[in-house]
Amino acid sequence: MKPFILASGSVIRAEMLRNAGVPLETIVARVDEGSIKSALLSEGAPARDIADALAEMKARRVASKNPEALVLGADQVLVCEGKLFDKPDTIDAARTQLRTLRGKTHELLSATVIVEDGAPVWRHIGRAQLMMRPFSDAFLENYLQTHAEDLFTTVGAYKLEANGSQLFTRVQGDYFSVLGLPLLEILGFLRTRGICQE
Amino acid sequence: MKPFILASGSVIRAEMLRNAGVPLETIVARVDEGSIKSALLSEGAPARDIADALAEMKARRVASKNPEALVLGADQVLVCEGKLFDKPDTIDAARTQLRTLRGKTHELLSATVIVEDGAPVWRHIGRAQLMMRPFSDAFLENYLQTHAEDLFTTVGAYKLEANGSQLFTRVQGDYFSVLGLPLLEILGFLRTRGICQE
Repeated sequence: MKPFILASGSVIRAEMLRNAGVPLETIVARVDEGSIKSALLSEGAPARDIADALAEMKARRVASKNPEALVLGADQVLVCEGKLFDKPDTIDAARTQLRTLRGKTHELLSATVIVEDGAPVWRHIGRAQLMMRPFSDAFLENYLQTHAEDLFTTVGAYKLEANGSQLFTRVQGDYFSVLGLPLLEILGFLRTRGICQE
Repeated sequence: MKPFILASGSVIRAEMLRNAGVPLETIVARVDEGSIKSALLSEGAPARDIADALAEMKARRVASKNPEALVLGADQVLVCEGKLFDKPDTIDAARTQLRTLRGKTHELLSATVIVEDGAPVWRHIGRAQLMMRPFSDAFLENYLQTHAEDLFTTVGAYKLEANGSQLFTRVQGDYFSVLGLPLLEILGFLRTRGICQE
C-alpha cells in the first residue's frame, strides 16, 4: 500500500479523512495561488477549471518531492452571480463580501485531484448551493466581531459546521464539499487502491 | 425573551444549537418511546407521523414542568423499504441491521416540535436520503469492532460526522437532519421569537 499524503494545511480536511479512518500524512503545498488564479481569470477560465487547476498544482508540487506516494490536492472556490470570491483578508473585506452575498444563492466548488507517479490519476468536483438570508446590519456587525478569528480562513468568511449556520436559510448539494472535500467520492477511490477497506 | 429548552439528551443536538449561538438549557424527557412507537405502528401510522408524535410528546412532557419556556422536542426515525428501524441494542442487532441496509437507500426523518404555553406552536420534518454501499462482510466486522461504542446511540448504528462516512456512496437532502435536527429551519423560527438575531 502506498503512503497517502494530503497536500493541504486545512485542519478540517485532515479531520474528515482521519474520522473516516484514512491513514494520512499532511504536507502543505507552497503554491502562489493568487497569481495562478489571476492568470487563469484573465484567460476567462471558468471557476471549476480554476479550482481544478489549483488542486492539481498543489498535488503535483507535493508529489514531486514524494514520488512514492499518492498525493491529494484540493481547492475550494466560491461563485456568486458569475463572480469568483477569495478569502477575505480584513474585517472590512469580510463585511463587504458578506453584504454582497446576503440574500443571494452562491455555489461552493470543492475540487480534488490525486496524483500518482507524476500524473493525475483521479479528479472530482463536488458542489453545494447555499442560500444566504437577508440578515440585518446589526446581525452582521455582531457576527464579524464574534467570529473574527474564523473570517479569514475560508472563502466564504463562514464555517457552516460552526458559526455559519445563522447565515443561511438553505443548503443544497454535497455537505462534505461545503466543509472542503468531496469525501464520499474520495473514499470510493481510496477503496479501489486498498487504502480503505472495500 | 423566554428561556429555551432542548428536551433531548443528545450531545450533538445541543452542540449544533450552541455552535449556532442559541442560548439553551437541556432537560431529558422521560417518555416510553418503545410502547408509543409500537402502538402507533399497530395503528398503521406512517413513519413521519410517528417521529412527529414522539417529538411532540417529549416537548410536552418537559414543557408541563417548565410552563414559562419554549421547549423543543425532537425524534429521528430511519425508514428503508417501508420498514422502520430502531436503535440497535446489541452488536448482533447492529450487524443484522447494517446487513439489511447494505446496498440500499434509506431515509432519515428528523421531526421537531416546539411547544409554548402547553401547545405546539411550530413543527418541521427534515429529510435526508442515504445510499449505503455494498461493503464486504470483512469491512462490516471491522466496523462493528472499531465503533462498538457508537453503534447503540443512533437509529442507523452510524454517525456520519464521525465513523459513518465509509458506509455510504451518496447522501442527499438535509445534512443537519442526518445529525439529528433540521437546524436551519429551527433557527428561522427562533429568529421570529427574538431568541436569535434577525
